[in-house]
Amino acid sequence: MNRPPLTPLADSLPASVPFVGPEALERASGNAFKARLGANESVFGPSPKAIAAMKIAASEVWQYGDPESYDLRQALAVHHGIAPENVMLGEGIDALLGYLVRLYVEHGTAVVTSAGAYPTFNYHVAGFGGNLHTVPYRDDHEDPDALLAKARETGARLIYFANPDNPMGSWHDAVAVQRMIDAVPDDCLLILDEAYIELAPSGTAPALDMSNPNVIRMRTFSKGHGMAGARVGYALGEAENISAFNKIRNHFGMCRISQAGALAALRDQDYLSDISAKVAASRDRIAKIGRDNGLTPLPSATNFVAVDCGKDGDYARKVLAGLLDQGLFVRMPFVAPQDRAIRISCGSDQDMKLLESALPKALAAAG
Amino acid sequence: MNRPPLTPLADSLPASVPFVGPEALERASGNAFKARLGANESVFGPSPKAIAAMKIAASEVWQYGDPESYDLRQALAVHHGIAPENVMLGEGIDALLGYLVRLYVEHGTAVVTSAGAYPTFNYHVAGFGGNLHTVPYRDDHEDPDALLAKARETGARLIYFANPDNPMGSWHDAVAVQRMIDAVPDDCLLILDEAYIELAPSGTAPALDMSNPNVIRMRTFSKGHGMAGARVGYALGEAENISAFNKIRNHFGMCRISQAGALAALRDQDYLSDISAKVAASRDRIAKIGRDNGLTPLPSATNFVAVDCGKDGDYARKVLAGLLDQGLFVRMPFVAPQDRAIRISCGSDQDMKLLESALPKALAAAG
Repeated sequence: MNRPPLTPLADSLPASVPFVGPEALERASGNAFKARLGANESVFGPSPKAIAAMKIAASEVWQYGDPESYDLRQALAVHHGIAPENVMLGEGIDALLGYLVRLYVEHGTAVVTSAGAYPTFNYHVAGFGGNLHTVPYRDDHEDPDALLAKARETGARLIYFANPDNPMGSWHDAVAVQRMIDAVPDDCLLILDEAYIELAPSGTAPALDMSNPNVIRMRTFSKGHGMAGARVGYALGEAENISAFNKIRNHFGMCRISQAGALAALRDQDYLSDISAKVAASRDRIAKIGRDNGLTPLPSATNFVAVDCGKDGDYARKVLAGLLDQGLFVRMPFVAPQDRAIRISCGSDQDMKLLESALPKALAAAG
Repeated sequence: MNRPPLTPLADSLPASVPFVGPEALERASGNAFKARLGANESVFGPSPKAIAAMKIAASEVWQYGDPESYDLRQALAVHHGIAPENVMLGEGIDALLGYLVRLYVEHGTAVVTSAGAYPTFNYHVAGFGGNLHTVPYRDDHEDPDALLAKARETGARLIYFANPDNPMGSWHDAVAVQRMIDAVPDDCLLILDEAYIELAPSGTAPALDMSNPNVIRMRTFSKGHGMAGARVGYALGEAENISAFNKIRNHFGMCRISQAGALAALRDQDYLSDISAKVAASRDRIAKIGRDNGLTPLPSATNFVAVDCGKDGDYARKVLAGLLDQGLFVRMPFVAPQDRAIRISCGSDQDMKLLESALPKALAAAG
């Protein structure tokens, strides 16, 4: 009895996880977190209308979800002023990124991203045998010119670019992003991850041009809409590119309850506006707490704030450890020099009070 | 501006769907189905305790699900008397099959299944460039000896075998299945799909032997547990095989609401017993309706009955069309000679009354 061999590619991959979940940290420490501010979830939750829709759908969950997510796709098309053929639903942006990489990347395909950008994208590129090329951030912003130059240099098939960015919270305005889109090489696809776009200042997202086959845009119900656990993301793009997902996607992969919740959330734009205001207020409060402790909060167009601890990565990791020890789940950038900061998600008033109390102790412990 | 090229493999794949959803049929016809008996969903629904758990979880959906599905995995391990290392959760068996194929299949890898067995598995094999070899059913049963012989002949890396089978509802007893497991070639993995196992007679599933690296077993909350729309499946197998999923899976892909529902469903085994009885009664009723109309219901260990219409596939397709025209969503096997049957899922009393009334008309129309 021998073990059936994996493919050489699969065999070469580590069993890994892009992020350790907060639950795993809780199990390791034996203590539940008092504040969950590490995964850029929306503590404000989804619209009550979305919750109500999900409760109703719970009783209907004996039925598979519609594999076309027809109602939601139609509603998103109307919402964005585009055609349903330009919209593809998926089990979170994570799944859609995996599908995209599978469609475009094989052994040795060049792919470009920023050093320290979204690890889950990198995980997918490695998982399909691609060659990942990185460029550094520039002043804590992703650098469109450097990404494009590296793509030209390497003949990249994909560029990953998040606007606003995670983990720094920085952003470029629509003019700069459109300039980048216009400069994407002909045989290259720009993945423009706009997961946080609903929380960014107006004028951050370029107009949707669904005729352009060189860009695909990623949106989600996980951030502004507060439904991270529901796993609903979507891609917006040129119709033939969008149709390619149908070659490989898990057609029946969408949770029926999540489909219902997302549809109701989309229809409650007033709630989303309200959340944007709450997020902005919480960002200001995190920034104030940081400044009150001698730290430098970075401007953010997201539901988190990267707070520069003023020294190197080792120091910031100590500060982070001090917060974790006090029961605050927070994370931080993985790569220097961004790792001089810790990344704190927006939270409730109670969360902010905990942060206010814990941060001075964490800084004292870090020395 | 050119379209970025897909990989040659992706380019060669059709944009397809293994099954057309009932919602798409409804949109095409303009009429809602009166009875939904085509996808082997459980019209009896999930446990009320599972529904209650999902309603509570709906309010907590702002949090990502635990990427390790720790609580559910622990509970499944206890339930099955195995270790958590032998259990992997996934977004339905469909997603787990996709991951398995990705782990073991590359261009030209031989894979064996039965002609007319689960199309979604075949879709994944094609999607990763595998060479699918099929063997015929034997007396409406999957044929273990033929599958094994074909695997030896082709040097197959994977064998797909469902017990009980879909679409025929037939099954082999545990002794026969164990004999098959014992005969799997050393470098081959048997995927034993037991999606319907909770509804089968006792003595259908061989004992779980988690030391054997040549078999992996697939279970789901979609059928007996009545949670198809929640997308919760799981694999049971030897620990190192199970760990390989962590190389490629979408770690944060599980819906948090679904995780909570599945845990509650698993804990309500009394409800599952009750459902098994209801399913058995409905199977008997479908069989009786078939016989009353001169047709031959096949024995079933699942939540559906394949009803032999007594002629060829063209005739059965006419009968099927007659039922669809009358608002009954049903499906049928794709491949001869199994396509002489239509496949009817168990239903409510109301569903059965509709079937009773519709079947004679469908038969009359088929001529």
